[in-house]
Amino acid sequence: MPVYKAPLRDMRFLLNEVFDYPRHYEGLKSGENATPDIVDAILIECGRFCEEVLSPLYQSGDEEGCKLKDGVVTTPAGYRQAYDQYAMGGWQGLSAPEAFGGQGLPASMGLLKQEMMGTANWSFSMYPGLSMGAMNTIFLHGSEDQKQTYLTPLTEGRWGGTMCLTEPQCGTDLGQVKTKAEPQPDGSYQLTGTKIFISSGDHDLTENIIHIVLARLPDAPRGTRGISLFIVPKFMPDGNDGIGERNAVTCGSLEKKMGIKASATCVMNFDGATGFLIGPENEGLNCMFTFMNTARIGTAIQGVGPAELSYQWALDYAKQRRSMRALSGKKEPEQVADALIYHADVRRMLLTQKAIAEGGRAMLYYAARLADHMVEGHSEGDQKKADKYDDKLGFLTPILKGFLTELGYEASNLGMQVFGGHGYIREHGMEQIVRDTRIATLYEGTTGIQALDLLGRKVLLMTRGGAVREFTAKIANFARKHLTDKRLRPYAIELLKLTAQWNVLTVRVMLAARKDRDVVSSAAHDFLMYSGYVTMAYMWARQAAVAAERIDNGGSESEAFYQAKLATAEFYYERLLPRAQSHATSMLSPSRNLMQMPTEAFAFNH
Amino acid sequence: MPVYKAPLRDMRFLLNEVFDYPRHYEGLKSGENATPDIVDAILIECGRFCEEVLSPLYQSGDEEGCKLKDGVVTTPAGYRQAYDQYAMGGWQGLSAPEAFGGQGLPASMGLLKQEMMGTANWSFSMYPGLSMGAMNTIFLHGSEDQKQTYLTPLTEGRWGGTMCLTEPQCGTDLGQVKTKAEPQPDGSYQLTGTKIFISSGDHDLTENIIHIVLARLPDAPRGTRGISLFIVPKFMPDGNDGIGERNAVTCGSLEKKMGIKASATCVMNFDGATGFLIGPENEGLNCMFTFMNTARIGTAIQGVGPAELSYQWALDYAKQRRSMRALSGKKEPEQVADALIYHADVRRMLLTQKAIAEGGRAMLYYAARLADHMVEGHSEGDQKKADKYDDKLGFLTPILKGFLTELGYEASNLGMQVFGGHGYIREHGMEQIVRDTRIATLYEGTTGIQALDLLGRKVLLMTRGGAVREFTAKIANFARKHLTDKRLRPYAIELLKLTAQWNVLTVRVMLAARKDRDVVSSAAHDFLMYSGYVTMAYMWARQAAVAAERIDNGGSESEAFYQAKLATAEFYYERLLPRAQSHATSMLSPSRNLMQMPTEAFAFNH
Repeated sequence: MPVYKAPLRDMRFLLNEVFDYPRHYEGLKSGENATPDIVDAILIECGRFCEEVLSPLYQSGDEEGCKLKDGVVTTPAGYRQAYDQYAMGGWQGLSAPEAFGGQGLPASMGLLKQEMMGTANWSFSMYPGLSMGAMNTIFLHGSEDQKQTYLTPLTEGRWGGTMCLTEPQCGTDLGQVKTKAEPQPDGSYQLTGTKIFISSGDHDLTENIIHIVLARLPDAPRGTRGISLFIVPKFMPDGNDGIGERNAVTCGSLEKKMGIKASATCVMNFDGATGFLIGPENEGLNCMFTFMNTARIGTAIQGVGPAELSYQWALDYAKQRRSMRALSGKKEPEQVADALIYHADVRRMLLTQKAIAEGGRAMLYYAARLADHMVEGHSEGDQKKADKYDDKLGFLTPILKGFLTELGYEASNLGMQVFGGHGYIREHGMEQIVRDTRIATLYEGTTGIQALDLLGRKVLLMTRGGAVREFTAKIANFARKHLTDKRLRPYAIELLKLTAQWNVLTVRVMLAARKDRDVVSSAAHDFLMYSGYVTMAYMWARQAAVAAERIDNGGSESEAFYQAKLATAEFYYERLLPRAQSHATSMLSPSRNLMQMPTEAFAFNH
Repeated sequence: MPVYKAPLRDMRFLLNEVFDYPRHYEGLKSGENATPDIVDAILIECGRFCEEVLSPLYQSGDEEGCKLKDGVVTTPAGYRQAYDQYAMGGWQGLSAPEAFGGQGLPASMGLLKQEMMGTANWSFSMYPGLSMGAMNTIFLHGSEDQKQTYLTPLTEGRWGGTMCLTEPQCGTDLGQVKTKAEPQPDGSYQLTGTKIFISSGDHDLTENIIHIVLARLPDAPRGTRGISLFIVPKFMPDGNDGIGERNAVTCGSLEKKMGIKASATCVMNFDGATGFLIGPENEGLNCMFTFMNTARIGTAIQGVGPAELSYQWALDYAKQRRSMRALSGKKEPEQVADALIYHADVRRMLLTQKAIAEGGRAMLYYAARLADHMVEGHSEGDQKKADKYDDKLGFLTPILKGFLTELGYEASNLGMQVFGGHGYIREHGMEQIVRDTRIATLYEGTTGIQALDLLGRKVLLMTRGGAVREFTAKIANFARKHLTDKRLRPYAIELLKLTAQWNVLTVRVMLAARKDRDVVSSAAHDFLMYSGYVTMAYMWARQAAVAAERIDNGGSESEAFYQAKLATAEFYYERLLPRAQSHATSMLSPSRNLMQMPTEAFAFNH
């Protein structure tokens, strides 16, 4: 099995040429230390760690999986050593506040790191990823005392964290949460209940694990307005950065899953475990949602990662494996057959992967700039700024998470398809990428939930189409600037058509939804996918614009790189973007074709 | 985990109402005994066997897998007993000639059986499926002596069979086959070489295994014209329906696969194994292709099966699991939340599964009639008849295999999606369906190969578009008949548009391909998918036409069933068929967007 290679050339292109991060960082307080040199050094170092340490553990971790014995979870061989390196390298605190031992770099740097780690070894990256969730929650909602107690060991990676939301009877619908929190005379709480699907719920990577838990106070209102958030440590902090007594929270079992087997997915039992309220009573769900956008961008990475990884390996294979002759004539006459890469249909699959990986990465980097501003707003206590960027990001987040994870899954399946029957055999790793990636459209809100969040909440309810108007204005503005360039003109025209269409579709759906509430749900999926294809088209046009300009300036030794960008943009517009139109058609079809079937008529003799 | 329920109501609808099999069977010699009563009794009995015997072994077979120890392969617990029941029930010989112990029923009956078995337990059904391949080869190409020796024990299921084609260096490109066959003084051959991916290569279900092997004679021409076909028995027949000496063909190892783990996928070593030439020297590939159409319809079943199975289980879950409230208002006010099935987006997923399962089944049943005629031609030695139906079937086969396996995979993923995170957990079986189904687009010719076979061979090379003209004429004829019926009119109009468009697309691709051979491969995938969506649209219109007529005739206790057919047709036309248009657009885009990228420009720093 080949190993992962960090796509540094593409990352630098996006950072320095397309999105001008150097200037962006100059404008950020946290960007003070993020000079181009430092950023590049971090990328290189992180890439090396991912290539040399995480990637080799990818397949063995899947084979071995996590084990639960006598109530203790152990990760696969090598994971603990790799985690030690990770923690020692200060990676967990890369974009965490310096006050708690972090490096204070912008949030976007954390996302770049996450992309590389998640591509090299998604299961591994779940452990620090969940810790990040706990850190963010405590940073945003914890008391000063809680911050002092928990943030430094979490930032240093000595402690890990989890998010305990789901219960057997509810995942999406958290209003059904039953776990109880009984107040104690000392101001703490005793939590009792069962949480399932808890990633990193128990493991041997850190000396302590800090659970962030949704639970109900006695007499709390029913539903979502009666849920509070608690900190429940595995071991009670000894007040001196060390650990004390074991708390009554234990891993009851590990789930057997399709993939991400090196990530421990635990059933967690809280048996009167000691917990501490974080944030206001009964506002637990709101507290959770404040950082949900960032968390979901994290999951969107799982769309880009498998597309990249599967592409790298499929490309290798397509260059080596020989089968049949190219239709336009022998390409390697001295060989018994031509390499797969000379067949148009194989190129279609590879280019689809490439367009998704690089187009998706561009979407991430675009959104990461907004995340930097939002986080800065929070850090500075500038709520207006935080809200402004939270809104911008809030619109893009479901598109990124929903659309990119769907396309990442498609891309990972295409990589497997390039291998033919060999893709189905475990040793090549291609089927593992498919299995690992399959979770991405399910957790952190299914694609259906992202679609409802986008159309129902962000577009219709919160902005009455304003979010689409604002974003499409930006795209149209870009497009108009490039109408006169021969190479960009077709994309600019297409983008102008699409931005107009996107607004028309939004209005039509909005009007239909006034008469028929089911329209929001019946149109949501297609609206999400349509939005994704248009957003990615914008990203490909932006990349093409930079590439065209660089080629014009001439003499670059990277001309082949820029030509490849232009060719991939052309592929995207001509072969993938047409799908947006079938989503537009489906979206406008009446909700009747979904709703008219009586429940009992879905099936007859079963 | 729920069990499989044979969808007898839908099968009867297609058999008796849509495709009038009773009349079809009356016109066949082999149909003499296939009276409606007998057919129904067989369906019921086969359904019972699949529900009660095969379905319960589905998940345990995946957990346990096959094992190789001391050169002997054992299947999972219960498989041998199930196979004994299968063989004792005479199922292997259902549509095999009576002369060799079969029941002599039409080939289509075998397909109906295969669908139910393959849906209940695909891995299990691979064993008899491969035997069928060996039986067909020997029946069509074997000498009288070979037929006498092998066909009876194969028909009785006492012996199994395999097809040994793939080698490490080649799968699709069989011209690269290296296995050698040395002639012996006694007229037999000694075969030496390695075959991989051999399904049912070794197992404990039958007392003997008959391998059909592609190999090269000494001094055979290079490439595909130098390959011959051989019979290589695991144990030499003793000439008395029993077995003698062990032959030098052994299982070297079992592949570790993503799914279909209860199916033994073997590396087979031939170490001077005794074999017998079957068919003419150097025409082995042609011999294989004569029954390839039937075999590929067999694989197309794997598109319908998982759609059906995953649908059944997802539907069950969607009725039981409660989450959130329907957007149009509470549907189950007395419950904590509404069942998933009340959410439009969940219905979209379920109806997609249903439309694929039932639309795909209709495609199978449509093609199975043609298979009956073709097989009858062969049996009667009427080559003209055989060729005529072979051509008709040859056009549909890649559409069925390529399109239905892609959509079957989509459907199985949607079923998993309905379960949310629970779909990713092994206990529910949903992820197993996905893993098992993933092989379908890879083996028996990948989707890319089906697409090339369809566009390059069947449409352009063999008939210069004639195959499309003939099939679309049939569809248009049907459509014109239904233009005046209010309920069918929209579908009839759409079909008329699509049939015209299909021909236009064919001509445009044909013209483009004259100047640019790469067009055949660059357009093939989209042509295949487009063809599939139109063919399925035809099938849904045919089902809708029957349903509308039955409702008009009134008083039927099955009215709800027919109404559901109409509603599903509406869903298909409004929500899935629009995808055909994005394939039409992509198909016509120039091959340049695939071919212009230099091989070395696909990736830069990896």
